[in-house]
Amino acid sequence: MRSREQVYPPAAPAGSLLAVCAPSSPAPRKEILGGLAWLRMRYRVRLTRSVVGRCGYLAATDTERADDFARAMLDPAVSAIVCSRGGYGAMRIVDKLPWDAFARAPKWIVGFSDVTALHAMANAHGIASIHGPNVTGLGRSITPFERQAFIDALERAKAPRRWSGLTILSRGRARGTLVGGNLTVACAMAAGCRFVVPPGAILVLEDVTERPYRIDRMLTSLALGGHLARASAIVFGSFTQCDPAEDGVTVADVLSDRTCHLGVPVVMNAPFGHGAKNEAFVLGSEATLEADTLSF
Amino acid sequence: MRSREQVYPPAAPAGSLLAVCAPSSPAPRKEILGGLAWLRMRYRVRLTRSVVGRCGYLAATDTERADDFARAMLDPAVSAIVCSRGGYGAMRIVDKLPWDAFARAPKWIVGFSDVTALHAMANAHGIASIHGPNVTGLGRSITPFERQAFIDALERAKAPRRWSGLTILSRGRARGTLVGGNLTVACAMAAGCRFVVPPGAILVLEDVTERPYRIDRMLTSLALGGHLARASAIVFGSFTQCDPAEDGVTVADVLSDRTCHLGVPVVMNAPFGHGAKNEAFVLGSEATLEADTLSF
Repeated sequence: MRSREQVYPPAAPAGSLLAVCAPSSPAPRKEILGGLAWLRMRYRVRLTRSVVGRCGYLAATDTERADDFARAMLDPAVSAIVCSRGGYGAMRIVDKLPWDAFARAPKWIVGFSDVTALHAMANAHGIASIHGPNVTGLGRSITPFERQAFIDALERAKAPRRWSGLTILSRGRARGTLVGGNLTVACAMAAGCRFVVPPGAILVLEDVTERPYRIDRMLTSLALGGHLARASAIVFGSFTQCDPAEDGVTVADVLSDRTCHLGVPVVMNAPFGHGAKNEAFVLGSEATLEADTLSF
Repeated sequence: MRSREQVYPPAAPAGSLLAVCAPSSPAPRKEILGGLAWLRMRYRVRLTRSVVGRCGYLAATDTERADDFARAMLDPAVSAIVCSRGGYGAMRIVDKLPWDAFARAPKWIVGFSDVTALHAMANAHGIASIHGPNVTGLGRSITPFERQAFIDALERAKAPRRWSGLTILSRGRARGTLVGGNLTVACAMAAGCRFVVPPGAILVLEDVTERPYRIDRMLTSLALGGHLARASAIVFGSFTQCDPAEDGVTVADVLSDRTCHLGVPVVMNAPFGHGAKNEAFVLGSEATLEADTLSF
């Protein structure tokens, strides 16, 4: 498919019902409670069972996590599904979820990191989704600006936004649909034939605790698979704790090395991911990258 | 393609010329020298420039590593190409190598770990290859039995072998072509559309320093991509330093959980990989798994 703006679910204004689901790993109780407290100041919140569970490194069994998520996807009373935490596990249930029915009556899916697997599925079904803090992130130190970006995405997704002052790796101008999320998860989904960069899309990527050679390997996978060549631009967010290994190669070296020959604009240090800033934005929205500014 | 025995390159008897190449990371000088000393007792050995270099976490630039490897692939005087070490980097050069010409006059490619990327390319071109120690492995503590398996693979690849007493995860019987290698690299190659499990193949996998949830993620990728369902059996080698995380899930739990529903025989603890034993065997050979014994 050609990159094109995707279908926006209906806005979730103040007072809407949000379903909090746990498609991935269990979350620290304190961070969940903090995030819920903030959400409850503005929205009605419905917890699903899996949010308070634990099953090894998963929040609950696959069946429980998938059932909870599927029910929220299909419930007409729910305006948005906010994920409790990332970690790992969403990939295990993506094929158990009712994507076709969801695409006929879409709602916002909100989260990042491991939630990239769910974004990839929603976006592949033509539905835009919100890349932004999980509930645990909302419960940690988050700035008023980030909270407002979260609210804006849920309530005024079409309102114009811009990120300026990004670090330019390759200069240029491009316009396309935003696609991507966490590099590790996007790559794992690509290995499972569940993540594709549509021609002309602007690829957004972030990661955490992956050494430079691993970032290299994942970008090389996406290059071999044709994903990088199909992108009209690449926007890197934070690469947190992806510290240089003893061989002296930094993650910035890798991001540049793996993209400099593509002939498309590339920037880094955009304010999303596991770093100091994680500003919500809409995957599937139409964006323009020009020099150091992404407008969307 | 249907799983079928692949073309065996001509044997490399004692006295043959082996080219030692470095498609991946630089190697400690001492281990290289030890491995070379052993190889030189039986074979003629030609070093390529990249073996003694260093370029960050790569042994040399992509061009240098690819040129060295391509020259060895095409040189009619060379009987086998033995990789100096794994690490990372082979994926960066796989598309720069002359696979079609190589398939017309094949020779043995020998190595494991990151060399899985080269095995995948050779096997996809219908050419069998040797999964076994790299030169650094030959230079470390390696048993006489492993040394003999290495020699047998190079010189008598068709001689029957068997691994008995494997740990059964799912009982059964299957016959198919051996395909695979390192799980992380196979998965990265799958994300790059360069690794496919042919229908009916016996999938062999090993890994090192990957936490259980990461092993889970990679096997889930291979499942989503249809690779696990196409395999007639799965043989897990060592999963070294893939220790249980604090959540109490072990790698053995993961290997069982991700394969127990497939309805095909599955065994673990086969003597290949980064563990105590790394016995050479031929990828692309026809093998039979029956209960706890793999015959090939």
